[in-house]
Amino acid sequence: MYICKHLVQFYETDLMGIVHHANYLRFFEEARVGWAHHQGILDYQKPDSAAYFAVLETHVRHVRPAKFGDALEIHTQAKIEGVKYFFEYKLFREKELISECRTVHVSLDKELKLIKPPTELKNIMENSPWIETWLSSL
Amino acid sequence: MYICKHLVQFYETDLMGIVHHANYLRFFEEARVGWAHHQGILDYQKPDSAAYFAVLETHVRHVRPAKFGDALEIHTQAKIEGVKYFFEYKLFREKELISECRTVHVSLDKELKLIKPPTELKNIMENSPWIETWLSSL
Amino acid sequence: MYICKHLVQFYETDLMGIVHHANYLRFFEEARVGWAHHQGILDYQKPDSAAYFAVLETHVRHVRPAKFGDALEIHTQAKIEGVKYFFEYKLFREKELISECRTVHVSLDKELKLIKPPTELKNIMENSPWIETWLSSL
Amino acid sequence: MYICKHLVQFYETDLMGIVHHANYLRFFEEARVGWAHHQGILDYQKPDSAAYFAVLETHVRHVRPAKFGDALEIHTQAKIEGVKYFFEYKLFREKELISECRTVHVSLDKELKLIKPPTELKNIMENSPWIETWLSSL
Repeated sequence: MYICKHLVQFYETDLMGIVHHANYLRFFEEARVGWAHHQGILDYQKPDSAAYFAVLETHVRHVRPAKFGDALEIHTQAKIEGVKYFFEYKLFREKELISECRTVHVSLDKELKLIKPPTELKNIMENSPWIETWLSSL
Repeated sequence: MYICKHLVQFYETDLMGIVHHANYLRFFEEARVGWAHHQGILDYQKPDSAAYFAVLETHVRHVRPAKFGDALEIHTQAKIEGVKYFFEYKLFREKELISECRTVHVSLDKELKLIKPPTELKNIMENSPWIETWLSSL
Repeated sequence: MYICKHLVQFYETDLMGIVHHANYLRFFEEARVGWAHHQGILDYQKPDSAAYFAVLETHVRHVRPAKFGDALEIHTQAKIEGVKYFFEYKLFREKELISECRTVHVSLDKELKLIKPPTELKNIMENSPWIETWLSSL
Repeated sequence: MYICKHLVQFYETDLMGIVHHANYLRFFEEARVGWAHHQGILDYQKPDSAAYFAVLETHVRHVRPAKFGDALEIHTQAKIEGVKYFFEYKLFREKELISECRTVHVSLDKELKLIKPPTELKNIMENSPWIETWLSSL
């Protein structure tokens, strides 16, 4: 399973002394982009390939707060159904579950019109392992 | 119904030319804080009152992209059930629905321990109007 | 003089309980974009006009911290010298000076190549009032 | 010399297709915090130690734009003069200079009052190498 690491920065905290909740969507994006790059389906030199995963839906559950300096690990799985891509994420600090997330995506062209999944992307996602009920809280 | 306005800033866009999806959680926070302030249950001089609404869960559905310079309006409703608060949001650009969201919250003390809903907050939320099935996509 | 208002949001704070310093550049961008829009030289429908003011240099001096819920006012002045635009900003909370800033900009085309100042922009900036030594700390 | 690495994320870009300028202050903070942690003068478990470096002034010069996926390197030097700390940064993409920065800091207590430099911090900064005129553009 692909694992993405993120060290919590000072600028990611808020006045409650914890990571602001909107930043988790940024961490999960890091994991998704890292996963896609690791699979060879995202070329940083062609930023349009980022539109492969336009965001349709996000669903986050917070279990424990993360704090400045925490070394986080994000585990990710992905699947495809028709024109939609589904990603699930578990975010840990060592063995502790911090947060879980599910996101849904579609591919768009430059004019932001829906397109069919690119073949290469489709092939990789169809062959990606997926565990049902992997998330415990969503 | 409480309505919060937000003018989309340049720094809220990404290289797809649209508002980055993580910023929507910031817009909904603006609406939630504005709602609470409007109800008289959030005193900016006591920032601890922000911990009244620690974030447990967020669920966002994107219908259309928002862009730089868009004048957005966020409609908000709130209810309480036990120790949990539920907020729902509809985000519009004029008549067009851009996004919908549901968030779930609990109150925490300074040590981030769960506390009972403060009485004033409880009273206001129990008397706040709530429409079931108000959101069309979540 | 053009004045831009900004209400400090919860998500703009950090664990010191004050506005994170990087957000000030966002506030000054709001002021700059608002100024340009007010002058009629920035059309939100043509986001490329945002590239009128590509950022070459920023210089910020912090005098007092701003906090959650503060109602800020940003005063702005602008001038042109050759291909460069200069903006200066004073950020207040009521009568108190919070921060001062100077930024330097050039116009770029879509390929990020330097272009001459567009005529309309040049005319407006040449006729914009400018007070030397307006900033007290930069 | 201490070197901090940063991989540019999608959420750090704006609609010009490049890294938004406010994010550079975040990158330089990463470098400063990383430097302090590397020197043993910042304990992530005591987030108050972050107030060692309250920001008084920032000055950034942009030479070239950074883009999504860029592997950046930030070189940092630091010195102390009286109650002030000075940091300088050079941000590279391979051999190319992207940006330079100078920041000035003081130490504050929890009530945001100025305090003398903590002894440990003072000792380390006095013995830190510093090259005058290291920055070429500021």
